[in-house]
Order: sequence, then C-alpha cells, then structure tokens
Amino acid sequence: MSTPRNSHLGRIVIRHLNPRQPDGPWPARAFDGEVVEFIATVFREGHDVIGSDLELTSPGGTTQTIAFPHPVHGVDEWRTWACVDELGEWSWRVLGYADDWATWLHAADVKIAAGVDVDLMFRLGLDLLDRVRAGRNTAANLAVLTGLADTFADAAGDPAKRIAAAHDTTVTEAIAANPPRSLETWSDPMTMLVERTRAGYGAWYEFFPRSEGAVKNKDGTVTSGNFVTARKRLPQIAKDGFDVLYLPPIHPIGRTHRKGPNNTLDASATDPGSPWAIGAAEGGHDAIHPDLGTLADFEGFVAEAESHGIEIALDLALQCSPDHPWVTSHPEWFTTLPDGTIAFAENPPKKYQDIYPLNFDNDYDGLRREILRIVELWIARGVHIFRVDNPHTKPVHFWEWLIAEVNAKHPDVVFLAEAFTRPAMMHTLASVGFQQSYTYFTWRNHKTEIVDYLTEVSQRTAAFFRPNFFVNTPDILTEYLQFGGVPAFKIRAALAAMSAASWGMYAGFELIENVARPGSEENIDNEKYEFKFRDFAGALKVGRSIAPYIARLNSIRRAHPALQQLRNLRIHHTDDDGIVAFSKYLPAHLSPTGKPDGVIVILNTDPHAVRETMVRLDLSLLGLPHDASFTATDLITGSSYTWTKDNFVRLDSFSEPAHILSISYGKVGSK
Amino acid sequence: MSTPRNSHLGRIVIRHLNPRQPDGPWPARAFDGEVVEFIATVFREGHDVIGSDLELTSPGGTTQTIAFPHPVHGVDEWRTWACVDELGEWSWRVLGYADDWATWLHAADVKIAAGVDVDLMFRLGLDLLDRVRAGRNTAANLAVLTGLADTFADAAGDPAKRIAAAHDTTVTEAIAANPPRSLETWSDPMTMLVERTRAGYGAWYEFFPRSEGAVKNKDGTVTSGNFVTARKRLPQIAKDGFDVLYLPPIHPIGRTHRKGPNNTLDASATDPGSPWAIGAAEGGHDAIHPDLGTLADFEGFVAEAESHGIEIALDLALQCSPDHPWVTSHPEWFTTLPDGTIAFAENPPKKYQDIYPLNFDNDYDGLRREILRIVELWIARGVHIFRVDNPHTKPVHFWEWLIAEVNAKHPDVVFLAEAFTRPAMMHTLASVGFQQSYTYFTWRNHKTEIVDYLTEVSQRTAAFFRPNFFVNTPDILTEYLQFGGVPAFKIRAALAAMSAASWGMYAGFELIENVARPGSEENIDNEKYEFKFRDFAGALKVGRSIAPYIARLNSIRRAHPALQQLRNLRIHHTDDDGIVAFSKYLPAHLSPTGKPDGVIVILNTDPHAVRETMVRLDLSLLGLPHDASFTATDLITGSSYTWTKDNFVRLDSFSEPAHILSISYGKVGSK
Repeated sequence: MSTPRNSHLGRIVIRHLNPRQPDGPWPARAFDGEVVEFIATVFREGHDVIGSDLELTSPGGTTQTIAFPHPVHGVDEWRTWACVDELGEWSWRVLGYADDWATWLHAADVKIAAGVDVDLMFRLGLDLLDRVRAGRNTAANLAVLTGLADTFADAAGDPAKRIAAAHDTTVTEAIAANPPRSLETWSDPMTMLVERTRAGYGAWYEFFPRSEGAVKNKDGTVTSGNFVTARKRLPQIAKDGFDVLYLPPIHPIGRTHRKGPNNTLDASATDPGSPWAIGAAEGGHDAIHPDLGTLADFEGFVAEAESHGIEIALDLALQCSPDHPWVTSHPEWFTTLPDGTIAFAENPPKKYQDIYPLNFDNDYDGLRREILRIVELWIARGVHIFRVDNPHTKPVHFWEWLIAEVNAKHPDVVFLAEAFTRPAMMHTLASVGFQQSYTYFTWRNHKTEIVDYLTEVSQRTAAFFRPNFFVNTPDILTEYLQFGGVPAFKIRAALAAMSAASWGMYAGFELIENVARPGSEENIDNEKYEFKFRDFAGALKVGRSIAPYIARLNSIRRAHPALQQLRNLRIHHTDDDGIVAFSKYLPAHLSPTGKPDGVIVILNTDPHAVRETMVRLDLSLLGLPHDASFTATDLITGSSYTWTKDNFVRLDSFSEPAHILSISYGKVGSK
Repeated sequence: MSTPRNSHLGRIVIRHLNPRQPDGPWPARAFDGEVVEFIATVFREGHDVIGSDLELTSPGGTTQTIAFPHPVHGVDEWRTWACVDELGEWSWRVLGYADDWATWLHAADVKIAAGVDVDLMFRLGLDLLDRVRAGRNTAANLAVLTGLADTFADAAGDPAKRIAAAHDTTVTEAIAANPPRSLETWSDPMTMLVERTRAGYGAWYEFFPRSEGAVKNKDGTVTSGNFVTARKRLPQIAKDGFDVLYLPPIHPIGRTHRKGPNNTLDASATDPGSPWAIGAAEGGHDAIHPDLGTLADFEGFVAEAESHGIEIALDLALQCSPDHPWVTSHPEWFTTLPDGTIAFAENPPKKYQDIYPLNFDNDYDGLRREILRIVELWIARGVHIFRVDNPHTKPVHFWEWLIAEVNAKHPDVVFLAEAFTRPAMMHTLASVGFQQSYTYFTWRNHKTEIVDYLTEVSQRTAAFFRPNFFVNTPDILTEYLQFGGVPAFKIRAALAAMSAASWGMYAGFELIENVARPGSEENIDNEKYEFKFRDFAGALKVGRSIAPYIARLNSIRRAHPALQQLRNLRIHHTDDDGIVAFSKYLPAHLSPTGKPDGVIVILNTDPHAVRETMVRLDLSLLGLPHDASFTATDLITGSSYTWTKDNFVRLDSFSEPAHILSISYGKVGSK
C-alpha cells in the first residue's frame, strides 16, 4: 500500500487484510495443507450492495477466486477459509465491487411490491440483462436471460409475477456466471509464506540416545547407549504415532567443570555430563560424541528412523564447554575478561562454569558463517529439523539472518525455538523466521488460562507464531504433574494432542515420572546429568504406563484431518469452572477426505475430582444447524451418544478425564 | 521499515511503535498542545540492562530526546508522554542501547557482596570509567569520576565501601551526563501530523441563524432571523464558554417538494423548508439564503463571533434540491434514469423527493473540482471549520482527496464528520483525514457502555479518531433524554464536557427540550422544518434552564488543562453499577501552567435515583502515592473533601448527579 497519500484508497474501501504480521516486513505464515481464514474489511458509501472476492495465487502461479460470503448485516468484515497446499510464497488480494444486480433486485422487489416506479424498475432490469447478455454465456444461460428479458418487457403481465421470475434458480445461476459489476477495486497484494506440513503439524518425542540401550555393568559402571542400540526403540516410537524424534545435543561433552548427578559441581570420572556442555578434545558442534558412535552410525539411525516415518530433529545449542575447539581457534567468539580468562555463563553471582556463552559482537561475520557451516553440515547429514536451545540469549537479528540463509537454500528446514522467555521475544523470534516455538502451555493448567491461551494461539497469533505444545521437557516437570497423579498426565497429553497441531513429550512422561528435585520444577536424578534405565515394557505390564493412551491420541490425530489444524480451534461454553470444551472442524470442501470432519473435546482439567457440567455447543462452528441432533462417538471408549447443542457431561479424571467425540455427519437429524 | 528481509532487525529489537494508524499509509494524528503517549517494544537477548530514548523532532527541526523510564520487570513495552506543540508533520524514532554501566553495576553489586570476582569487577568498572572520562565532561563531573576511579583502584580498601561509592548521587549524575552505551540501534522514523488545537479541543454550540431573532408577526407570518439579528446571541454563547458555533446550511433552500412542519410533504408557501435541501433560483452551495442576509452580513457575523473568541463552523452538505443550479448546468453530477428524470434520494420504497444525491462516478473530476471551489470560497469568506453532513454517503476516496487538497493549502482547516454509521466507515473517514467525528456517544448511556466507549476513544483509537461528543443534534433526542428529566440533561452534559476534549450541544438542550415526535428519536416540531422561538432569559428566570450549569462546565474545562486532553482519561473502579468514575491528569512538566492538574469525575448515570458507592481510585494515575491523603474540591458545589484511594460517595441525580473534583497538589499528606 504505497500509493501517494492523496489517492491511497480505491473506489471501494478495502482495509485490514489478514492474515498478516502485526509489525514488520515479514510475510504471514502457514503450512502446506493448512486451512486458513482470510479476512478483509470491505465497504462502500451508501446502501448499495457490494460483493467481494478473494484471489489466491499459488507460488506456481495458479490462481483461484473465492467469493466471500456476505457478512452479517452491519458488519463490514468479510471472511472465508481456504487451503494453501503448495510450498513457497503465495500472494493474495481482495476485490471489492458494486453488485449491480443485487442492488437493483432489492430495490425492484420492494418498489414493485409498493407499486412505486414499476415500469422504471423493469426498464433498469432490462438494461442490466443487456449487460449480462453482452458477456460470454452458455446457450442455456442465454436462453434463461432472454426469457427473463421477455418477461420484464411484457408490460401487460402482473408486475409481482414478472419480478418473481427474477428469483428463479436458473436466473440466479445465469447471473452468477456473468454478474454485472461496477466500481471494481483491488487491494494491494499480500504475501503468505507456506512452509512444509511438519512446520505446523506433527507429534514429537524426545529421548537421550545415550540412555536407549545403556547397560549397567556389574562393576557399577555404565556402558552408554548409542545410535545402534537406540535404533531398537524406533519401531515402538513409530507405532506410538510420533512423527519427529528430537535428540538433545549429540556432540562431544566437555570435561572441565562437568556437572554431576542432580546438577552437582563434582562429577566423577564416569559421569557422562550434560549434552549441552558442547565441545571436547574429540570435537565441537560438527562432531559426534564417540560413545554414541560414528557418523555412519548416526546416518544409519537417521535412515532407520526415516524408514519408520520418523524424522530426526537435532538440538542446536550455541554455547561451548571450556574444552570446545573454538576456545583456542577462535577466542574472539567469546568474551575475554581483563584478566585474560574467558567469561563463563553467569546469572550473577551464580556462575555456570561448564559453559562459555558466545559473544556475537566481536566477530559477528566470522561467527555466523561458522554457525551456518555447522547447520549446513548437519543438513547434509540428513537433518532437516533443528530444535534451537535458548534462542533468546542470542541476538534476534542473527536468527533472522540464519533462518533466511538456510531456508533460501533449503526451504524444508524447520527451526523450533526453545524460547521460554517473555512474550515480546517469543513472538519476535517467530515473526523473523522460527517455524515453531515452545510455549507457555505447561503453565496453563486452569480452565480460564487454557481457554485464553488456546484462543490466543489459534486466533490472535496464528499468522506468525506456531506453538508446539510439549507436555514436559528435561527442564520442566510442573507442579501440576508432580501432584496430579496419573490423571494429570492423561489430561495434559489429551489437551496438548487434541488442541495443538504440533505437540510433544519427553521420554518418561508415559511412565508418569513425576518426582522432582526438591525445590525445583524438573525431574530428580535428571537425565541431563546421568543415564536413565527405563523399563517401558515392564511398566506397561504392571499398569504403570500410559503409552497406549498416548498412542491412541496420536492415532486419533492421524485419522481426523480437523485435528491436524490449529486455526480451526473454537471454544464452547461449559457451566463448570473446571471443564474445558473445544472443537475442531473442517467442512467437506476443505477436508482432504472430501468429507466433513468434526471433533469435540470435553476435558476435565481437575485431576483430583469427578466433575459434571452442561456443555453448550455453538453448532454453527461445527457445520451443523442449531437444532441438530447428531451421533457423537467417543474415540477413546467407543461409546456413542446422541447430542444436541446442550448436553450433560460427567467426567471422572480417575477413569477418563476427556471425551474426544467424533461427529457422524452422515446421520444428522433435528431435535 | 523497508530494509531487505534478511537484515530487517537491528542489533537491539525495536518494534510495535505507537501511536500509529492501524492500517494504511496515513500518519498518526495529534493536535497542537496535545499530550501524547509514545510506546515501543524494545528488548534484547539475555539479561544485560538496556535503555531506550524517544527522539522527537518538530516540523521546524527542533529535536528533543526523552529517556523512556524502565518498564516494570518482565514487560518490554516502554512508554513515555510528551507534548507536541507545533503544527505540521513531526517525526520520531526510538533508540535502544546496551546500558553498560547499569549492567556492570548490577553484576558488581551482587558479585562483590558475594565475594566473587572482586578485583575483576573493579577492573571492569575502571575500564568503564575510562570510557566516561574520555567523553566531554564538566570539570565537576570529571572530578567525581576521577575520585571514584581512585576508590576503585584502591585495592587495600573495603570492597563493600568501594562499590558503595558507585551509588553516590554525584556519581549517578556524572555517569548520566555521559553514559557508556553500546549496540546503539535506531528504529525507522515514524511520523505524526499535528493539527491545530481546535481539531481536538473545543466546546461547540449549534443554532439555526434563521431562528435567532425570528419574529412572529401579528398576521401569523414569521419574519426570519438573519445574520444581523443572530449576532445578538453571540455574547451570551461566548459567556457560556463555547469556542465554536456551528451553523446548519445557510444556502438558498429549494421549493420543489419542500418539507413542511414535522417532515410533512405538503409545505405551505410560508414554511421555510429544511436547510439541507440546498439550492434554489437564488443559487446553490456558493450562495447565502436571501432571508439570512447578504455576504457582508455573513462576514460581519463571522467577524463579530471572532471578536468574542468564537469560530464559525459551516455545514458542508453535498446534496441538492431539485432547484439547485447544478441540476441544469451539470446534470452529469446526478443520476439520470432511463425515463430522463433525475433520481431522488431514496431508501426503497421510501423516496426523499426534496433531495437529489450527487453521483461521483459520471464526472468525478469535474464534480470534485467544483466542490473544492466551493470549499475554497467559504474559506476565503472566513470559514475554517466544516461540519460535513453524511460523509458516509459519498465515496471515501473523495474525502481523502478533498481534505488533503484543502489542508495542503490551508493546514488550519478542520473537517468534522457527521458519520453516524458503522465503525469501519467511521474510523476510515478519520484515518483518511477528517479531523473530528460525531460518535456513538449519545447511545452510550449505561455504565458498562460508557466505560467501554471512553476507553476505546481515549486509548484504542486516539491515534487517528478524534471524537466530538455532541449531547444532542436536530436529528437526535435519545430515549434517555426524552424520559430522564433535568437530571438526564445534566448527566449527559457533565459526562460529555468532562470526558471528551471536544463536546457540543444543539440549541434547546439547555432548555430541556425533551419532547420527541411520536415514534422518533428527534424533537417534535423540529427546527429543521420551522422556526423556533426560544425564550432563554425567561426560562432561566423560572428555573427551566441549565444554561448556567453548562457555562460552569465550560469554565471548568478552561481552568483545567487536564480536561483539554483526551488520551489522559483513565477509568477508576466503583462498586455501584450505575456510577462511573474517571480522571484526567497532567503532571507539572506536561502542564501549560507548570503545575500538576488532576480532575476526578464521579457521575451517577441513573437519572431516576440516588446512588451510593465506594470509589476505588488508582492514585498512581493521578501522580499521587498509593497512600496519599489529599483535598478534593468539588468544582460545582465548592465543597471540599479529604480523600484517599477509597472513598464513599452519594450522588443524588435530582440535585447534583456528578462530583467534579479538583485535586489540591499543594497539600498531599499520607493516610
């Protein structure tokens, strides 16, 4: 919108186009297959009828035109949904026009009924018909239009019948094929960057490869798991329905000031150290920890995962142990103090002596080129997803540059920001390029918080911020999980998997690992500092695993395209202050199956109680008439219910804390 | 913000600059003397301390720099207020920088107290002091800095005392004069158009000049008032504190289909007709109705008004009676129907046969040049304010063009939009140029509506939309006024005059003219179609006039600069659902008097009842400590109260429905 100030507006006003970024030059974002709502304020002076079209052009140059449905009377915001299903930069614009036929028809209807200007109105109608007939019409339509013109011209006929003929379906269709319009006005074009599906939709699992297949030896030592032993868990992870497996850093770990169990400062010689203390004599960010295997082992692991439909996400943690090769080769990439030492990471007076933070202000060009080299290296080794550790401690313009550089060459590479920080930073990282972000989800546990947050991520920030709802991480074991028992874990998994298009969990969640290091919000005996030996099969046998529940959630996600979207989430009212209700819906024409898909989730957020409520559904959000009576099948229990807009629900968190209900669109009746 | 995508961000992130227009290329707006809040999101990675400055450059090129106060911890939105006091286009931008001294001082304080890195921290401090001393310093500051350097360098001294010296006020001042900063990053510049004071602040009065001095003759005929007789009311209007006098159209009125009393279709030969049916044999928009006098009479009226400090606002109603000269000279400016007639204004099936609407699509260039000529003509005749009738029935891009054209030559000309229409249109008219707009104020009568609306106009839309709170018009006599008696009129006047920077009333309001034409929301025997004979003095004598109350409100507005602003309005909590509390405040440095000014308004919106409530003031919004005890003087009654943050209030709408309280800043104690 850069025309000179005196003539910015066109003949019809078109403003407030959305989706857009709230600020800055970056395009709005979507993912391949995403169903997006396009919005524009379109209006003109006076009372004449207008229409508006969305024109959507794919990166390949294919253009589709979608007529916006008319907004409710008095509202000038036009809205329609469309699916963007091609990678790259889409462009779209909005047309506003005077709908001459609709304006005339409205006036003709009321004036002819009142006996006012009867001849004049038919004459004006004939002029319009001439315009329609002058365009390209099918023979059938032309016959309809000519017939109508004859009717209008028949001054002897009953005016009421003559104007009624203009409402015949065949006329409506013939006019719609070639409508008389005027004052056509186009908005400036908007852009939308469409990234690959996994940028927005997927189920993530996190494990430490060193724990997978680690063996406790009889002498008390541990033999580390590695890429060969860890491969053995891939089939189960695939069976559980995960799409992405995220690995903490796999690089050599520093020995200087290595951390011991529970973050202690006195590691023994056999403690494996934190994978985030990157770099040792064996190499830095470009190397693989010798205990995990060779590059060939890694590549074999990636290939095996791929054969199971699992993609590997690697950690990108831009910090170094004091033993990192850069410390000697490029001391200018760190902060050297007046005493000649390199500054540790610190939160004064606390120091993190196993970590040197990078300094981006001494040799920005050199450092960023080296980081780009590292990222390119792992891309060449088969990694196309990076989970970025603490991006909010590096300059934001560095990320803007890095992601643009990488995506220019590799548009399929996805960066997930571990930005547990303030909203301005979290949102800006997303605006400038991060395809996904960790979120505040783990700390949104009460109904009002959940409703607010789901509304925020699905509506207010969806044009640029893609949430990945991890339910736990090695750093996060919330109070809610610590004290909510098995119900808390099921509630959080169901909520994340059903509400977000991307969700994730860190190994151990399915085993209800809920004991925290005292005074902290993370697991005791944390895997960050030691090996974990988990008996998944044994836990399952004795009923101490919710892995089957998790697998069921993922399988429901795969079966229901509505759940593979985020922007379609809508909240419904419940009377109880602990029960959340939301739905996701795709109409047939936007669903990859060609059939409507609607899922309703009713979830008891209270892990300690049985709760009952009335659920008040807005059926228009589910493509149903307001008086519909329909069959809702619980996808967890298999039970079926006959539901209407008002339904009684009882949820016992100790058995099933959530109804996940699929609507049978084939058999909708009315109440 | 037009740098290429890969490097849009600077080293420090600066985004979301406000005030700005929500969409489109137009600058944010303010008026001469307006106190405006500037807002920016500024942050960087990590935990180092940053600072931010607002740099504000006047149209004349004078630049001032205002340091943003630090936001509350965890908030990245920086806010500060500044007064813009020069006409024209201001520019402003935001600086973000690393505050090296603050970062070091925080670390030094906590590390030295913990005995960590003591020598190192003093050495880093000395490096910073060297940077400060290398800049330009006063001799006194240089001595302070050298003294501190000696203290830091004294390794034998007590570390606690040495670092404490860095907190000495003299040191703080010396550092502030020449602070060591790095990573300085500027935002792109923003613009703000500052228009004259009357664009945003003023009290308006409306009368029909033909009624002022009209005489009922013995034979039943009426001799019209005119500019000579109407001049006689100017002194009283000035005494009542009004700044602007708005006149309905003063042009010749058509005779064809002239409307009679109460909008009837059969006017008699002596009915004067509606001033909005513009144009007759005597002329069109460039002519003066012969009954009102000559051009000289009009110019004399304008000059007399000016001598009383009153500015005349003229109506600009772009529509014609069938007798308008344009109908014959420029039929292309109207819509000609197939039967050769010109289309009346209509709302099918209803027709307004005294009005031809203009058609902007046949000869847009010709028509707009003629309208520009008309506007220029009246400007030449001394009119610099136009109240535009129904702008929402003309193309918006026409207004964008007209106002830009006029303001380019006459930046002091103010256009007020009578845009009683939907929000999108109302806001867009403001965005593209209208300096003021009529509003939904008259229909916001209940507490929650009022609180929402005041918040909207003072905060959300203040960057581009300037409300003028008219309490009534010839077209609007709300149900609230019809049935609320004298209290309703006082309540609405007090609310409008105290909350809005611009407010207005139409003659007769002060006489409690509250009888509507049955079934309508406008006065019976409406002045639009007939003469009114009002006995202002007589009504006052018998206590049927609230003119003195109105005059008091206007005098309070003039005495209190805080009331001459809009953006400083803030709502306070009251327990009662009918009592509204709000305040306006200017701190001393932003007040033209050099003294703080704070006014609290507590208003009973219920015209039928006595109400009581606790009022919970947020004293920080009034420049007072939270535990302040202060004297609040009622500017209506003269009573004084000792108030704190919690106060009991009883408001009897039948005596005084509102407390208008001035805070005595000279004598603030604590509770």
